[in-house]
Amino acid sequence: MAKYVYSFNEGNKDMRYVLGGKGANLAEMTKIGLPVPFGFTVTCQACNKYYEDGKVVSDDLVSEIMAKLEELEAVSGKKFGDPDNPLLVSVRSGAPFSMPGMMDTILNLGLNDDSVLGVAKLTNNERFAYDSYRRFIQMYSDIVLEIKKDKFDKIFDGKKAERGVEFDVELTAEDLKEIIEDYKKLVVAEIGKGFPEDPKDQLMEAVLAVFRSWNTERAVLYRELNNIDSTLGTAVNVQEMVFGNMGDDSGTGVAFTRSPSTGEKKVFGEFLVNAQGEDVVAGIRTPQPIAEMEQTFPEVYKEFTKIAELLENHYKNMQDMEFTVERGKLYMLQTRDGKRTAQAAVKVAVDMVDEGLITKETAVSRIEPDQIGQLLHPKFSDADLAANEAVAKGLPASPGAASGQIFFTAETAKAAVEDGKKVVLVRAETSPEDLAGMVVAEGILTERGGMTSHAAVVARGMGKCCVAGCSAIKIDEKAGTMTVAGNILKEGDIISIDGSSGCVYLGELEMVAPDLSNDFAQIMKWADEIRRLKVRTNADTPADAAQAVKFGAEGIGLCRTEHMFFGEDRIKAMRRMILADEESERREALALLLPYQKSDFKGIFEAMEDRPVTIRLIDPPLHEFVPHTDEEIQVLADEFGLDFTKLKHRVSELKEFNPMLGHRGCRLTITYPEIAEMQAEAIIMAAIELKKEKGLEVVPEIMIPLVGNVKELAYVKKYVVETIEKVFEREGEKVDYIVGTMIEIPRAALTADEVAKEADFFSFGTNDLTQMTLGFSRDDTGRIIKEYVEKGVFEEDPFQSLDQTGVGQLVQIAVEKGRKVNPYLKLGICGEHGGDPSSIDFCHRVGLDYVSCSPFRVPIARLAAAQAVVRENSNTEADK
Amino acid sequence: MAKYVYSFNEGNKDMRYVLGGKGANLAEMTKIGLPVPFGFTVTCQACNKYYEDGKVVSDDLVSEIMAKLEELEAVSGKKFGDPDNPLLVSVRSGAPFSMPGMMDTILNLGLNDDSVLGVAKLTNNERFAYDSYRRFIQMYSDIVLEIKKDKFDKIFDGKKAERGVEFDVELTAEDLKEIIEDYKKLVVAEIGKGFPEDPKDQLMEAVLAVFRSWNTERAVLYRELNNIDSTLGTAVNVQEMVFGNMGDDSGTGVAFTRSPSTGEKKVFGEFLVNAQGEDVVAGIRTPQPIAEMEQTFPEVYKEFTKIAELLENHYKNMQDMEFTVERGKLYMLQTRDGKRTAQAAVKVAVDMVDEGLITKETAVSRIEPDQIGQLLHPKFSDADLAANEAVAKGLPASPGAASGQIFFTAETAKAAVEDGKKVVLVRAETSPEDLAGMVVAEGILTERGGMTSHAAVVARGMGKCCVAGCSAIKIDEKAGTMTVAGNILKEGDIISIDGSSGCVYLGELEMVAPDLSNDFAQIMKWADEIRRLKVRTNADTPADAAQAVKFGAEGIGLCRTEHMFFGEDRIKAMRRMILADEESERREALALLLPYQKSDFKGIFEAMEDRPVTIRLIDPPLHEFVPHTDEEIQVLADEFGLDFTKLKHRVSELKEFNPMLGHRGCRLTITYPEIAEMQAEAIIMAAIELKKEKGLEVVPEIMIPLVGNVKELAYVKKYVVETIEKVFEREGEKVDYIVGTMIEIPRAALTADEVAKEADFFSFGTNDLTQMTLGFSRDDTGRIIKEYVEKGVFEEDPFQSLDQTGVGQLVQIAVEKGRKVNPYLKLGICGEHGGDPSSIDFCHRVGLDYVSCSPFRVPIARLAAAQAVVRENSNTEADK
Repeated sequence: MAKYVYSFNEGNKDMRYVLGGKGANLAEMTKIGLPVPFGFTVTCQACNKYYEDGKVVSDDLVSEIMAKLEELEAVSGKKFGDPDNPLLVSVRSGAPFSMPGMMDTILNLGLNDDSVLGVAKLTNNERFAYDSYRRFIQMYSDIVLEIKKDKFDKIFDGKKAERGVEFDVELTAEDLKEIIEDYKKLVVAEIGKGFPEDPKDQLMEAVLAVFRSWNTERAVLYRELNNIDSTLGTAVNVQEMVFGNMGDDSGTGVAFTRSPSTGEKKVFGEFLVNAQGEDVVAGIRTPQPIAEMEQTFPEVYKEFTKIAELLENHYKNMQDMEFTVERGKLYMLQTRDGKRTAQAAVKVAVDMVDEGLITKETAVSRIEPDQIGQLLHPKFSDADLAANEAVAKGLPASPGAASGQIFFTAETAKAAVEDGKKVVLVRAETSPEDLAGMVVAEGILTERGGMTSHAAVVARGMGKCCVAGCSAIKIDEKAGTMTVAGNILKEGDIISIDGSSGCVYLGELEMVAPDLSNDFAQIMKWADEIRRLKVRTNADTPADAAQAVKFGAEGIGLCRTEHMFFGEDRIKAMRRMILADEESERREALALLLPYQKSDFKGIFEAMEDRPVTIRLIDPPLHEFVPHTDEEIQVLADEFGLDFTKLKHRVSELKEFNPMLGHRGCRLTITYPEIAEMQAEAIIMAAIELKKEKGLEVVPEIMIPLVGNVKELAYVKKYVVETIEKVFEREGEKVDYIVGTMIEIPRAALTADEVAKEADFFSFGTNDLTQMTLGFSRDDTGRIIKEYVEKGVFEEDPFQSLDQTGVGQLVQIAVEKGRKVNPYLKLGICGEHGGDPSSIDFCHRVGLDYVSCSPFRVPIARLAAAQAVVRENSNTEADK
Repeated sequence: MAKYVYSFNEGNKDMRYVLGGKGANLAEMTKIGLPVPFGFTVTCQACNKYYEDGKVVSDDLVSEIMAKLEELEAVSGKKFGDPDNPLLVSVRSGAPFSMPGMMDTILNLGLNDDSVLGVAKLTNNERFAYDSYRRFIQMYSDIVLEIKKDKFDKIFDGKKAERGVEFDVELTAEDLKEIIEDYKKLVVAEIGKGFPEDPKDQLMEAVLAVFRSWNTERAVLYRELNNIDSTLGTAVNVQEMVFGNMGDDSGTGVAFTRSPSTGEKKVFGEFLVNAQGEDVVAGIRTPQPIAEMEQTFPEVYKEFTKIAELLENHYKNMQDMEFTVERGKLYMLQTRDGKRTAQAAVKVAVDMVDEGLITKETAVSRIEPDQIGQLLHPKFSDADLAANEAVAKGLPASPGAASGQIFFTAETAKAAVEDGKKVVLVRAETSPEDLAGMVVAEGILTERGGMTSHAAVVARGMGKCCVAGCSAIKIDEKAGTMTVAGNILKEGDIISIDGSSGCVYLGELEMVAPDLSNDFAQIMKWADEIRRLKVRTNADTPADAAQAVKFGAEGIGLCRTEHMFFGEDRIKAMRRMILADEESERREALALLLPYQKSDFKGIFEAMEDRPVTIRLIDPPLHEFVPHTDEEIQVLADEFGLDFTKLKHRVSELKEFNPMLGHRGCRLTITYPEIAEMQAEAIIMAAIELKKEKGLEVVPEIMIPLVGNVKELAYVKKYVVETIEKVFEREGEKVDYIVGTMIEIPRAALTADEVAKEADFFSFGTNDLTQMTLGFSRDDTGRIIKEYVEKGVFEEDPFQSLDQTGVGQLVQIAVEKGRKVNPYLKLGICGEHGGDPSSIDFCHRVGLDYVSCSPFRVPIARLAAAQAVVRENSNTEADK
């Protein structure tokens, strides 16, 4: 027969899937001899059996529980319902993984008309006893009998009114007794029978209530959202009550073995004399710092710090503990791994390696990669965050914090910065034309667009704070105002935005600069030693490239070339090129652009020294480069000496219904091969000149985007290679280079065995690949995806974390097919996912060579890449 | 040792891959005893060996050719270069498949200064002999020696000027001799050596020229475009010359065994006395109908008709023959399967089955499915087509022909039709709002959009003529004019458009109505007996449904529901629904739409009787239903009593950058489940009422579109099923129904094993699947795709013929994964590809249950489905 109930002295910490997380740790503490109030755990399997049997409790389970109860009575020397020495227990749920939405704790189970007398006697406090009793009835009725709490509140408040008192504590024991009578009547009226007086009935019903709470709507939704297996079930912990409120020799507290905010090695926490756990949480009384316990309870304090050290050494991790002191005796009620800030996580991990507690692999795997972002960006001071309320909340699109005067166009923003102002650029959404404004702004706030909108991507690339898709703000560009939470802000008003939380504040908040510790450098060093994946960056400027190198980037995985066309003189030549009727005109305009491109590439190559740089040929649809209003078109027509109507027609011809799926990427260079020729020449000339001037050996990686058919790649590649050969001949100098493609169209992945024949490398452009594989435009569907996540249709935003089931399948197909025909194929990822930890884990598993992400995510990626190795090794261990 | 040269009496018709198509047929005719001038064929394998050996001819091949030449001399009794009785030969290329771009014929090879005397003697016509000789030098120099023809023309024209003559024939034999001398000098000047006088040298060089022509740029491109294996090589046919120009007892002609235009069983063709084949082709003299040969050459005619019959019986197909009569003797020079019109193809196929010549399987496979379209639609008379020149050419988007007055908006078109006018609707592109205009128009002409643009798809659905993407026209909607080929047409001017050719004509052309013969019905009957795939139709109206049933549709594979929302009252309710702030408002508006939808469905169900009908829930983005100009929005605001600014904001919120990848399909019904509820209720109520009223047993198939994740399907399905259950209960009546999804997003195909768990059927929406898999918006990329096809990047338009390598791979994955978890999954295709023969063949092979296409393509699909079976069986045969 299966065993469905374990006493605390029968289990251990590895029995999480049997006893739940809480139960396993209670058993472990019992096992290593710590003072834990005795009790037992009904297993997760018992819960599952309950459901399998059609929500029926087997007689066997009842007998087992009763047997354990007898054992508990024996150990404690107390008895359920005993009017002299009653046993009271707490009943708590405890699933294998911490899961909000499940049953709360029931305290003081075992109280009835008899045992309440015993409590009164033992505590020598009748009022306390009856107050506990009425609280128990209310809590139990709410949770187990499902009678609404407010019905009890009404009785309670009625009694207070009757007595003419203001505070609960003013009610006497007699008042409370009357209330209890009324409570019991209410129960009869609600459920047609009396409140269970038999503690054993109370216990069995409470156990069932925990089982039921496993399948509440909230719990089911939470599991779906967090991908928790719904067949795990929950355990139930039944534990003897201890009381921290039995006088001044009692108390209760919570503590960490190290500081959860700084990581300092010292017990941190709070303590309250003569109180129960609830009181600490409720915040009615202000608890003391735990250090003061040394004065209050010197012996207990000594014992507790010893236990804290013992637990940390035992679990080899910082612990978060709950305890109670009952009449001078210390009881441990819970221990678990403590949550911590990024700064603490780094320090604790490094310290523990130094202390010989853990390996560097463990240290590296202890840091949440996403937390690292907190260390790299400035943030608002805790004081100001506490003192100010957000007026709106958008998507935390790019971490960091920014305060400044709001401006609604790139031009006004630029002008303001030139006047020495600090600026937050506020736009409905941004486009490449806003770039100049984005560069100078402290931060960017947009009304529309998702986590991978233009604003978000560019801001992350710049390491600049951005809140995107903040639909609570309404911009009236014409009026030059923005409405938020009833306030109408005008140009020049100051706001603060927090790109890590998505919050928007009125006025200026105090800023705290990032401070990278030596510990951080140590963690990064270990991560680099462990990881297999290379980490590159997406950077379009020498400044970004240099920043990324500082953060440890080993190359550029994606250098976009189109941002380079937006400078004042450049855009003119670019527009002339686009609007040209003849190839010859186009070539003239391209000749003007060539020196700009060449010097851009030289700057970037130089910043990266001998690291590899992947340059993507022109990608966006041409309409992004031309003006669209009549006024702007007129200006352009005048400038170029062209006919307005003709120019307008040409501009409107460039418009597309679905530009994402339109004339862009290699389709442009197939139509106008001379663009690819110009770019190839600029790239190679940059490399040749650096070789001649500085002896740098640059090996450019030329990337042809948006290929879906190998013939597209071959077509453009032919022009690229021919151009380069001509340059080699003309210059009398050669450099090495390779030509590859982005895999961003599903068809390219499906036919990778063909594409790989023409490619030296694949770079997975998982942004577009996600858009096309899922049929979601990231510019349009931010709101839909949010709704999908809320409704549980999507587990997470597929533009943030790679959809491994769908898009990942295509990546895997492409990797396998590509390597089959070309074993030396270099494989990387340059979509936004290249900076997302779980996506990086996927990239590692699927065998890519590198990931590439925005400069500020490089450290995150380095860490995540190392964790992928540790995770893989531990899975391999587990498989043995 | 391999055999590289075959005399005509050594081969047969099945040796196409050895002797090429032409050579195999010459051998076959020789084999069955027909009078074929003797000769031999150098094999395709010889050509391949030439390339394998690095473009070198082996001595063995030379010896073999010389041996066969000796045999030819022996058989003919003539000798190469003999001044008394010279052997002259023709040299022709002949690949396994007919391939333009390869070498032309060289006639009269063997002529030199000696043999020309023999020819002069034998023909008793010195001028003819020297004219032949100078032509031979010119042709040979052009093809073999690669000396430009115009250099010879200059000499020739110079001589004419010198002689002061206008016509070639005015030059005397002496003049020609001088020209020949000058020609020879030119050759020396060009290639540094003399024109080859030795006929054997001439022959070997000519054979090599044929080999080389296999790899000219044009030939390579043609093979790439037509997917012809480039390792096949070409054969070379060397055949004794016969002369149809040896006097009035000679002649030449071409003929078909049956009429290639009507199929009538009677020899059809043309004949020219005292002429060579070139003369017939050149059109200098008008040939006689072949029947007149009976008078001219009664014996030869008798022999020829006998041979024609023999060849047809032998090849079991209508033959296209070339022949020459030399001094009263008939020679057969070529036979091959004859090209024919659709009408002829049908009649010949049915007649041949009746005659016991072929099986019904062969008959069915003899008709080009795309030709069938010609039989179903009206067309312009041949006379008017010959008399009128097209002023522009667009895409042949929907077959048929139409003449009418042009109108530029749906409203004006509708008004004009109400005034009794015949209208051609001319638009930059169409949208659902133009539907009313499209319905009443004779035909539709658009400036933009590809083969699957809105205009094209809707027009095909209606069986209405449409020319799309005609970029040669420029519409100025404001001015109410259209410019084409320099003509400015205004509203009301008459044009004619041919949807089968894409041609646009000015004025009205005479129309010929389609006439479906009994033979056509017979072919269709056989096709139905043979095919395994079911054929359904895409239809949204009872009229379309009835038309499709007439054409043999076995169900509706796609009934779009959104067109139903455009009627005058409906669009009002629809807009109210879309612009509602609250669910309750939305429900009110939906309640108004419900009766319309129900009656629409009833009409369609009734038209289809007990055939299955798949109804797709609402699919397009909501912005398609709302107005966009300020004026229209103002009207709407007044009508609804709403604030203009607020309404405008709401409308602009609906705008998307990439609506294709935006808020549409099931995303709409996930946001607004009440829409799905209304549609489900309308569908089921329609079925229930028909059951009650007419005893019809309709089994609706409810299709949830744009699913990429099984959870989307499950989410919407839940609302659909719950609604239906409620309806059943309310009505006290049930009907059977199934719920499935469209597979149109790559992710749905990749995760079909999950999706199939919730689906009773999959319908492949290959339009969208192609758009997303290839990253091509069909609304935007018509021009790019055209360019791709021209540049050889695409073999064909993937929106016309399924991209089997890429998109097909996803279909196959989905079929396999889907059937694995759900063996009863019903599988069909409802994209435009459902009417494309090669895509239908793919659907058959991949194991779909049905294809669905527009009503007018149903017969084409039935035929193509039968051909897929025949093809599969013959492949299976071949494998044995």
